[in-house]
Amino acid sequence: MKIALFDDYKVGVVKGDGIVDVSEIVGWDSAQPQASLVSLMSRYGHLQSVIEEGISDARIIPLQAVRLRASVPYPSKIVAAPVNYYLHQDEMNVQFNNAQYTVENLGFFLKAPSSIIGPGDTVLLPFRDRRTDHEAEIAFVVGRDAKDVPASEASKYIFGYFALMDITVRGKEDRPWRKSFDTFTPIGPWIVTADEMGNPNEVDLKLWVNDELRQATNTRTMIYDCYKFFEAASSVMTLRAGDIITTGTPEGVGPIVDGDTVRIWIERIGEFSVHVAYK
Amino acid sequence: MKIALFDDYKVGVVKGDGIVDVSEIVGWDSAQPQASLVSLMSRYGHLQSVIEEGISDARIIPLQAVRLRASVPYPSKIVAAPVNYYLHQDEMNVQFNNAQYTVENLGFFLKAPSSIIGPGDTVLLPFRDRRTDHEAEIAFVVGRDAKDVPASEASKYIFGYFALMDITVRGKEDRPWRKSFDTFTPIGPWIVTADEMGNPNEVDLKLWVNDELRQATNTRTMIYDCYKFFEAASSVMTLRAGDIITTGTPEGVGPIVDGDTVRIWIERIGEFSVHVAYK
Repeated sequence: MKIALFDDYKVGVVKGDGIVDVSEIVGWDSAQPQASLVSLMSRYGHLQSVIEEGISDARIIPLQAVRLRASVPYPSKIVAAPVNYYLHQDEMNVQFNNAQYTVENLGFFLKAPSSIIGPGDTVLLPFRDRRTDHEAEIAFVVGRDAKDVPASEASKYIFGYFALMDITVRGKEDRPWRKSFDTFTPIGPWIVTADEMGNPNEVDLKLWVNDELRQATNTRTMIYDCYKFFEAASSVMTLRAGDIITTGTPEGVGPIVDGDTVRIWIERIGEFSVHVAYK
Repeated sequence: MKIALFDDYKVGVVKGDGIVDVSEIVGWDSAQPQASLVSLMSRYGHLQSVIEEGISDARIIPLQAVRLRASVPYPSKIVAAPVNYYLHQDEMNVQFNNAQYTVENLGFFLKAPSSIIGPGDTVLLPFRDRRTDHEAEIAFVVGRDAKDVPASEASKYIFGYFALMDITVRGKEDRPWRKSFDTFTPIGPWIVTADEMGNPNEVDLKLWVNDELRQATNTRTMIYDCYKFFEAASSVMTLRAGDIITTGTPEGVGPIVDGDTVRIWIERIGEFSVHVAYK
């Protein structure tokens, strides 16, 4: 199932090129979208069939007639893997002359939840004189509280997957600073539930700036796959239902500038774009 | 006014050695303490006199008869200043042979909100073979959403102050990893509102491990004071009502081990202790 937030933070299920508003069926409170999402996830086993029956006759709205919103709007944290693809590790270590860049050495970092935006929104570049890069990633939302979960059990704690751009100012500051500017975490286009997604560690992932393909990989080239990174993060801290985990970017990161359009696509998830402008 | 969360996340006002439950007066929902705190802060101008009148005849409970809780239990982020006292900057740069450690160079880092504990709780050390340090800090809670606030205006956005221990594993990993283990952010003992606190940039701050004084400074020796760091953080991202900002630690950081008791005291705020145990 593809679960999308849209318009004034209603919740819908995506069917082909359309979306069906299921807010009433699931008891959604648009004023509390994050709490509503956590509640929906906790009841999903029961709700799944209710939703499927409920939408059979319902009116399908064309996707192009709605405004998609960030599908996980207010997580309690965004946990991110640094340098988690072998070829990106190579490009970082060449560029910054630092052989210490590995996910094992760095652990993880955190991004501010206030940096989240949705499909069609605009990334605002804070600096005209510093390089700011796109980083394409597969991310997921934690379905229930988790601590010390082994990789072999992680899939039971992951509710669903989506695409994420980890926008990053290059430089010497700590990663949380360089990656937490408002608008620096576009996510979307919706959440693909784990049952529909299947194995997240074998999907193609691509990112274009305007019409130029900049990043293209398959998630099987990750150093820590989704489940292994879940284990690593949950060994440190309690992951809360609704938290976002993002798994790092492959090679091909590069600068974005005023006027660009950045598009991300992941197999079995879908795609979305954001605009880029100087603040 | 000293505002404390206690027992099953009721809210009270501290008077001398006692506390008065004001949950009913302020319309507090103990099941939603963070949302209730944000609501209380937004109405504080109006509520202040209501609270003061309401508690005049009320029953004062001895503080020792209640369990104090973390006074800001679920912020959307914890923003932290790295290396923000001159003498701590010296000790870090000597120890790690790295002249780049300055708050200007590093920006800020983030700690996971899931690491918060309250007075009397226990810090759990994840490693027996790695050094884990205490760091004593003055912290504050953001009273209303803030973006691009100059230092001269920052005091209007700060609701109140408290003491914070930024527990830290030493090593090569990113700060968010080394500082986000569950139990690594003890805060307390309560929130001292900004009107009662006065100038936070001229108060004494001390930390003891067992009976040994380990850290002692005055906040006037900070490199970025509370207001300047507020400006720096809010220039990057929107600070949300209820977020925690912590301002870095002075010289004297050192290891804690199983069985220790760590006590922090800040002038005009008060003190609290936590226990230390191996996980």
